[in-house]
Amino acid sequence: MRIGIFPGTFDPVTEGHLDIIRRSRRILDRVIIAVARGHHKDTLFTVEERVAMVETCAESIDGVEVLGFDGLLIDLARKRGASAIIRGLRFVSDFDYEFQLALMNRRLDPEVESLFFMPSAKYSYLNSSVIKEVMRLGGDVSGLVPPSVLARMEGKFRS
Amino acid sequence: MRIGIFPGTFDPVTEGHLDIIRRSRRILDRVIIAVARGHHKDTLFTVEERVAMVETCAESIDGVEVLGFDGLLIDLARKRGASAIIRGLRFVSDFDYEFQLALMNRRLDPEVESLFFMPSAKYSYLNSSVIKEVMRLGGDVSGLVPPSVLARMEGKFRS
Amino acid sequence: MRIGIFPGTFDPVTEGHLDIIRRSRRILDRVIIAVARGHHKDTLFTVEERVAMVETCAESIDGVEVLGFDGLLIDLARKRGASAIIRGLRFVSDFDYEFQLALMNRRLDPEVESLFFMPSAKYSYLNSSVIKEVMRLGGDVSGLVPPSVLARMEGKFRS
Amino acid sequence: MRIGIFPGTFDPVTEGHLDIIRRSRRILDRVIIAVARGHHKDTLFTVEERVAMVETCAESIDGVEVLGFDGLLIDLARKRGASAIIRGLRFVSDFDYEFQLALMNRRLDPEVESLFFMPSAKYSYLNSSVIKEVMRLGGDVSGLVPPSVLARMEGKFRS
Amino acid sequence: MRIGIFPGTFDPVTEGHLDIIRRSRRILDRVIIAVARGHHKDTLFTVEERVAMVETCAESIDGVEVLGFDGLLIDLARKRGASAIIRGLRFVSDFDYEFQLALMNRRLDPEVESLFFMPSAKYSYLNSSVIKEVMRLGGDVSGLVPPSVLARMEGKFRS
Amino acid sequence: MRIGIFPGTFDPVTEGHLDIIRRSRRILDRVIIAVARGHHKDTLFTVEERVAMVETCAESIDGVEVLGFDGLLIDLARKRGASAIIRGLRFVSDFDYEFQLALMNRRLDPEVESLFFMPSAKYSYLNSSVIKEVMRLGGDVSGLVPPSVLARMEGKFRS
Repeated sequence: MRIGIFPGTFDPVTEGHLDIIRRSRRILDRVIIAVARGHHKDTLFTVEERVAMVETCAESIDGVEVLGFDGLLIDLARKRGASAIIRGLRFVSDFDYEFQLALMNRRLDPEVESLFFMPSAKYSYLNSSVIKEVMRLGGDVSGLVPPSVLARMEGKFRS
Repeated sequence: MRIGIFPGTFDPVTEGHLDIIRRSRRILDRVIIAVARGHHKDTLFTVEERVAMVETCAESIDGVEVLGFDGLLIDLARKRGASAIIRGLRFVSDFDYEFQLALMNRRLDPEVESLFFMPSAKYSYLNSSVIKEVMRLGGDVSGLVPPSVLARMEGKFRS
Repeated sequence: MRIGIFPGTFDPVTEGHLDIIRRSRRILDRVIIAVARGHHKDTLFTVEERVAMVETCAESIDGVEVLGFDGLLIDLARKRGASAIIRGLRFVSDFDYEFQLALMNRRLDPEVESLFFMPSAKYSYLNSSVIKEVMRLGGDVSGLVPPSVLARMEGKFRS
Repeated sequence: MRIGIFPGTFDPVTEGHLDIIRRSRRILDRVIIAVARGHHKDTLFTVEERVAMVETCAESIDGVEVLGFDGLLIDLARKRGASAIIRGLRFVSDFDYEFQLALMNRRLDPEVESLFFMPSAKYSYLNSSVIKEVMRLGGDVSGLVPPSVLARMEGKFRS
Repeated sequence: MRIGIFPGTFDPVTEGHLDIIRRSRRILDRVIIAVARGHHKDTLFTVEERVAMVETCAESIDGVEVLGFDGLLIDLARKRGASAIIRGLRFVSDFDYEFQLALMNRRLDPEVESLFFMPSAKYSYLNSSVIKEVMRLGGDVSGLVPPSVLARMEGKFRS
Repeated sequence: MRIGIFPGTFDPVTEGHLDIIRRSRRILDRVIIAVARGHHKDTLFTVEERVAMVETCAESIDGVEVLGFDGLLIDLARKRGASAIIRGLRFVSDFDYEFQLALMNRRLDPEVESLFFMPSAKYSYLNSSVIKEVMRLGGDVSGLVPPSVLARMEGKFRS
């Protein structure tokens, strides 16, 4: 059984993230979504909220597990026997950063492969920060995040 | 009559900004310069000062209007009947960010086109942050910002 | 009246080209599609065939004119009183080439502005060469080129 | 069983190619190396020679199959039940081309995923053309291609 | 005698920095390593600590001098009679930033040349921030920084 | 004495090339301009003509030597005791190619450093191919190449 880890902040999870999760399940038997704790003041949702949102959105995709983490990604990969770290490559400015990360991860454990997927073109320019900013300013982001996430975002911004 | 909006922080307006404004007026009948309010602690000048500086510098270019704003750019475009958002493309690292923004704006209103201009080569590497940093360290930035802006910057840094 | 020129080889015209033509007509009053003659051995269709195909595909867009040309683009711009050269920017590898071209054109005539449009995301990765290669190998390219172009391509590849 | 296809010209196969093949076997159960026939005048080795060289070099890696092909890659993928097309991403200039290809392949068959691997840093700048050029000029390319390939190249350049 | 200045934050100095210093000494007679003071809250080590660490690491390379500075780099270059500012170019995302900086420095003093070196491939993806983050999370960074730096980092993170 | 080699096709030499030659002489004691023979059918001028043109244009810069060559660049560097290969970096699309070349050269001789200079912004988008194409179509390229080169180009295109 081949296991992959898909790490990220998921603040919040977007349709672009879900697209990568679905694609990675075609190649890997099991996908662990690792939600980085991060610094709470920098995220809109707590790590518990973010884990819950991903769980809700990914529950229709089998072979997926969601967890929060705050250590070294490669330690999680080793502990769980993962053979791949899953990343989406959307555009050129992702490239250098992703390669730097992948080379560091390869140095920390040469047995874990970084695996890059290409998201659907319609999601290629999505990111959580832009979505939050547009919503904060009153713009419509439905279709960019799943309905359950949209509801939670409305709760945050209204409060 | 075709109207374009040129959004930015303009903290402060540079010769590079003015170059794009002049170029955009060749194509559009009216250009609205939308000065983003931003978070005051992050800008050297208040939005009122920035609007005033742009007004002074652009007063010799007809068909130009300057205003401060802090909502969703596309709402301003719709309210003013603009058919274009004007952006300068200076180099590759602008590209991905600008496209992400443009695709989001297109999603929010498909009738408003993002329009990219190429600045004069001599201004291509100008940006407000570098200019402020050089001036703070005592370097000479005359020729990079209009004289009226230079005077106001000297006031800020001397105080 | 503002006139723009959209130059290219159009061998053949794709849905991506038509998307840029439609977008440019929102900003400019008249768009001249300038089909570069090119070296015949390097093109699948003759310049006459390419002009005819663009004419057929663009006939539903008003304010558009199609012509073949083989001189200096900027001479055509001047002769026709164009204020803009229209270009689509699809991704980063276009960028440097387009800027080099635009700077050379600006040097040849500083009054003609190069204007960059962003194609629809769904067409962003289309180009005529890939379409021809896929068709040559028996792949389905319907939806990437207009039906009238598809018919002509089938004629070429069958013969 | 998950099958991947690694397409290329392999004129000749380099240590960089073999690195990607080894990495891809960590993720996929079987890897089919598809050697594109190409135009003979443009390649140093015939497709039969190139297939033979890859077979020799990859014989120590199990789960690998080598074949020549000259149709549409996605047809081969379908016929062989492959779920992935394997590509190495070495640097930024690969990126746009690879994405264009991957989007076209996704359009031709949305069930086949393009999967990008990162080669070992020491092989990241290798490509067959540079190796051939250096050897033609009398430079030493040992270590960049396997010894069996080196011997065949020497045969070609000496003749 | 030709003098170059190698500016940076060096928080901490890495094997990648030392690689560039060694390479630059092949071309220049004397290299001044200018450690930017920076905002203390943003650096792990004080400027005095960073200067001391670079001195320790570079003491085996002759013709090298280390100093802290916090003014305009070009003023330091002029005062010391330097003819070159030394920079490492590692990957594409460095490029635009470095060129913007270099053009501004050229404007401030056209006599001082910016000189770009390519680091060893094995260090190309190193940067101080990633190293600090990995160490903070308990990862092994030996081999990426010199042993004396590693010891000091352990002191910082243990305290 | 430090010697650098500036390799290229110089078909023909442009003001951009001369700018790099002047800059490199600030750092290196002697600059050897190595004019690659190339395939004659692919160049406008013979290698003898190209060497002669560079000699004429560079005669006012002391410490410069011009020669034709057609072997491995690194062999020339070794034979002449050069410590640097001089390259101009103009924009991002140069970057990957230049790095691939530089890494290959470093592998062939680790003692020879590749040294990248930034051309003057006004020459950054110049290249010999565009200049030839513009001239062929009747455009004015004075100011982009030295007058002596312009005269020779006129001779070629008139004949």
